[in-house]
Amino acid sequence: MLIKIICGQMEIIPGRPDLNYQKISQIICQAKAKKADILLLPEMCLPGYLIGDLWEQQTFLDDCSYYAGQIAAQSQDICIIFGSVATEAAKINEDGRIRKYNAAYICQNGNMLPGYLGRNFVIKNSLPNYREFDDARYFHSLQKLCAEENVAIADALSPVAFTIKGQQIKLGVMLCEDGWTDNYQYNIPNILAEKEASLLCNLSCSPYSLEKNKKRHRLLAAQSKTAAKPLIYCNNVGIQNNGKNIFTYDGSSCVYNASGKLAAALPMFTDELLELTWNTETNEIHSATLPAAPQQETDIIYHTLRYGTQQFLKQCGINKMTIGLSGGIDSAVTAAMYTDILGPENVLLLNLPSRYNSEATKNIAQRLAEKLHTNYAVMPITESCQHTEQQLTSTPVTNFNSNTTFNLQLSDLQRENIQARDRGARLIAAAAAAFGGAFSCNSNKSEIAIGYATFYGDICGALAMIGDLWKHQVYALGHYLNDEIFKDEVIPNEIFTIRPSAELSEEQTVGVGGDPLVYEYHDYLFKAFMERWHKITPADILRWYKNNTLVAELGCSDKIIQDTFPDNHALIADLERWWKLFSGFAVAKRIQAPPILSLSKRSFGYDHREAQLTPYFSREYYQLKEELLR
Amino acid sequence: MLIKIICGQMEIIPGRPDLNYQKISQIICQAKAKKADILLLPEMCLPGYLIGDLWEQQTFLDDCSYYAGQIAAQSQDICIIFGSVATEAAKINEDGRIRKYNAAYICQNGNMLPGYLGRNFVIKNSLPNYREFDDARYFHSLQKLCAEENVAIADALSPVAFTIKGQQIKLGVMLCEDGWTDNYQYNIPNILAEKEASLLCNLSCSPYSLEKNKKRHRLLAAQSKTAAKPLIYCNNVGIQNNGKNIFTYDGSSCVYNASGKLAAALPMFTDELLELTWNTETNEIHSATLPAAPQQETDIIYHTLRYGTQQFLKQCGINKMTIGLSGGIDSAVTAAMYTDILGPENVLLLNLPSRYNSEATKNIAQRLAEKLHTNYAVMPITESCQHTEQQLTSTPVTNFNSNTTFNLQLSDLQRENIQARDRGARLIAAAAAAFGGAFSCNSNKSEIAIGYATFYGDICGALAMIGDLWKHQVYALGHYLNDEIFKDEVIPNEIFTIRPSAELSEEQTVGVGGDPLVYEYHDYLFKAFMERWHKITPADILRWYKNNTLVAELGCSDKIIQDTFPDNHALIADLERWWKLFSGFAVAKRIQAPPILSLSKRSFGYDHREAQLTPYFSREYYQLKEELLR
Repeated sequence: MLIKIICGQMEIIPGRPDLNYQKISQIICQAKAKKADILLLPEMCLPGYLIGDLWEQQTFLDDCSYYAGQIAAQSQDICIIFGSVATEAAKINEDGRIRKYNAAYICQNGNMLPGYLGRNFVIKNSLPNYREFDDARYFHSLQKLCAEENVAIADALSPVAFTIKGQQIKLGVMLCEDGWTDNYQYNIPNILAEKEASLLCNLSCSPYSLEKNKKRHRLLAAQSKTAAKPLIYCNNVGIQNNGKNIFTYDGSSCVYNASGKLAAALPMFTDELLELTWNTETNEIHSATLPAAPQQETDIIYHTLRYGTQQFLKQCGINKMTIGLSGGIDSAVTAAMYTDILGPENVLLLNLPSRYNSEATKNIAQRLAEKLHTNYAVMPITESCQHTEQQLTSTPVTNFNSNTTFNLQLSDLQRENIQARDRGARLIAAAAAAFGGAFSCNSNKSEIAIGYATFYGDICGALAMIGDLWKHQVYALGHYLNDEIFKDEVIPNEIFTIRPSAELSEEQTVGVGGDPLVYEYHDYLFKAFMERWHKITPADILRWYKNNTLVAELGCSDKIIQDTFPDNHALIADLERWWKLFSGFAVAKRIQAPPILSLSKRSFGYDHREAQLTPYFSREYYQLKEELLR
Repeated sequence: MLIKIICGQMEIIPGRPDLNYQKISQIICQAKAKKADILLLPEMCLPGYLIGDLWEQQTFLDDCSYYAGQIAAQSQDICIIFGSVATEAAKINEDGRIRKYNAAYICQNGNMLPGYLGRNFVIKNSLPNYREFDDARYFHSLQKLCAEENVAIADALSPVAFTIKGQQIKLGVMLCEDGWTDNYQYNIPNILAEKEASLLCNLSCSPYSLEKNKKRHRLLAAQSKTAAKPLIYCNNVGIQNNGKNIFTYDGSSCVYNASGKLAAALPMFTDELLELTWNTETNEIHSATLPAAPQQETDIIYHTLRYGTQQFLKQCGINKMTIGLSGGIDSAVTAAMYTDILGPENVLLLNLPSRYNSEATKNIAQRLAEKLHTNYAVMPITESCQHTEQQLTSTPVTNFNSNTTFNLQLSDLQRENIQARDRGARLIAAAAAAFGGAFSCNSNKSEIAIGYATFYGDICGALAMIGDLWKHQVYALGHYLNDEIFKDEVIPNEIFTIRPSAELSEEQTVGVGGDPLVYEYHDYLFKAFMERWHKITPADILRWYKNNTLVAELGCSDKIIQDTFPDNHALIADLERWWKLFSGFAVAKRIQAPPILSLSKRSFGYDHREAQLTPYFSREYYQLKEELLR
């Protein structure tokens, strides 16, 4: 028998069951028009997933239940399988709030079919609590429910059975993490397959990260192969956020045949339907939508940033963007991206020179604006900064204890920060409002890692679009924008060769000096601190250095380490300097930083939770340091 | 037999096992000098508890294990019971990282005694995942371990048995939430009591919230009474944070006798030892440290803010504080608090008038500074704001598409925000750095709830000390500071009577107009949105209003609702206005807000997790609205 299955890779709008229900109703109509037998929709397709503590609102949960019932009512002539929250008013979660499950409903003939443990839904068991996920905060797992009801989990799990065209079908329905079986006690897909599911369906609401789909492919291909069953992966598109991080959802819904071979796949970030034909005799699934060739990293970065930013601006109602343009790579790439996203007429680029800005960077800024055809203005900050310095140092401060007066003094660093805040908080913020829209935070991940930024100066704005890109990835994106998108040198070539500099003092002016970071080394050092599953600390760095494996572990060049550090003292002093900032004052800056568009395996923000602490060096670190300095 | 027990209400420094170990060693020496038989120390007293993803650093975990062994080595002639992280290198957590338990070690004669399931530690079962807690992110519960090892949880649990002065003692050791049994499947203290523990010990690392100790008292008193065993509650002091929230730990360690009666208690926020004598024949515990009388709310608020702020400043190395002083209640209370904490010589108060500031508020500001004997300066912002407005509106913007130029225009609201940022980011931030220290965020909870603040203007600074106080609590604290602390009218009386105003335009000047919030109503409305365990939404408000229970539910006066809203239209328009801000743009502001000192049942920040979403009104809301407007 041939069964037509449609996998609805829909855009989910988090926190809006009303809008998601409208969208789902449209998809149901489309699926019926296409004579589909089964419609699959993603996990949490009514409420959305990353909605924070909105899960505590009873009226919100009530609406989700209502719309779930409305979907079931539309399941005449089609079986609809979708994910949403399920509640049980008579029970409570461990926090005393209403009992909630991350659930899948299987609906046919206007009804919800039996799921697990006498409920009319299937219950997710593997609840992720890493990175951005807080599932245990909101949902009760199948395991906990089984313990309450004194049922073995393997007895509770079973494929959902129903009839299509007179033939019984058994679908093994699981939710997202249930398929990521590496570290959980129970292997849900195996149990479902052993219980004779003819087909496995994974409903997901799975945010995109670089490299993540490779792992997913490895896991799901192995699952379908081991189980010798086809497996459909149905994921959503759109963006969701948890405040500090914006996550993109790539969709990439796909099908594995019983041999573990990828048979069909939708492209990333498209709101569309994947149409499949399942031959129940051969257990093969066919589709006209064949998988595309994999993309290169910078290609993916560009498309993900573009999609995520576009969706975020749409959600916030931001149509115009103002960007401070220094003449450096970060603001240049940001400007080019926003021009690509919003059109040049909706972008205002501001060059805000002080007396420390070189002619080189001022010229670069203007040429970039000309090439991009955007709006552009030059607003010097010299006069205002002078006024601020003068006002601060000449206004008498009265000490009402001694009834004497004194004057404040400004250090060089304080004068630098005055410039940065004069740009960000005085001019860019106001110009952005006047232009009508928001302004951009141009900070990259390398800077954010160690707080190389001024509070309310440059670490501010509506969104840190490139806040999850290391400096070398920003450069690569710059080249990509010139070569592949604009097909012109919109970002002037000099930007790629001049030494990056904040230009806040004589010493830093381009042509004279530059940033204290050696990005060819520090990018990789900070990446080790941040992105490894098992976190790296200075003790690991010194151990690798001592064992001559540092270069191999970090992935940087041997030459850069030799060129940067004349001796062990220098390497250790550098390591301590940045570790203290990374785990110290930079945390304070990140707490007040704009949301970051998340892209990597680990982004700063809610994805990487931090307390303000005093920096810690481990016992092993001090031992290694002593050895290396002996 | 008389057994001497010491309960060490120590200050824990989060993320610093080295420093905590030093402290613990001192306490062990003190306890030995006092001939104690048993020393109890709090949960997680080596690593600290709120340390974010520091739990992912292997070298940090290694140090915790090392220091735990060092504590055990000191358990000659004394039994030491303390909480820390326990790891098992051969196992992994569900996230694939090293297996971690929230554990208690019981040490005697230099060894760690047997705990649960063949391990040398006791394992916490009830892992909280609400408010600021993320236990499931880091720790494996006893329940999950039991499931893996196929052991019933009641079989795994047992009192720890050891011998003192030749007599066998059975202690029921549990960790914090294990004693908060209301909603968990397993009642740990009951199981331990049934297994003949002679004494229950709850090691906690429990942050303070208003009203929380009443619930704790109710729970623990009932536990000791039900079990007919004495119960010792050992909690730490200090502060810990998760980035967005600073939590105080009050200690309040105490003892309940077998009848459920509170027999002894340490005061809040004191780093000291509670000395107890346990008569094993009568099962009574005696102490010279009798419980103090309960304090009033404002008294507690004052002491908690003072302690938390002082500790936070100490941790950050901040010795001086600069505060923008508007002449309103929020900055006045903040200024008085910092003067009390740091001394007047370390406080700089800045009055930053524009042409909209009334003589009334300018005079109030100066009188406050005089009374407090602080440092004080007046720095007008008129000239700078004029320059900014002029620069923005007169600098030609070039459109590089049409090669034409245009000028930006500023709206009234934009001019107001320019003033706020001129104060915060231009002057206060720079003056604070020059004075040597940080600056204060004076926002209260009512403002933060709906984002009545300017980005990089007033919602900035190192700490929002009063960010978890509703406006009426700020007033009460103001009176308390005058009456109880300074015993003088340091905060001028007019502040308590003038209508609060931002004074950013002619219309808002004190004497002319004021804030759009009617705090006597909105404080209670926003409190319902935020602080109820079951979150309230506009549908609940309209339902209560329709059923004439709104006043009783909110706790505000009937008169204020009648005076504020002439009809249903007005009430509904107001509700929608603030709900849209509360769940909309205010979230964006909170994402970039300073850390808030947490005090209430629910504070903005990590305690109340939020995504940037579009505001949602439920189906019931629209139905009720239609009825009420019909």
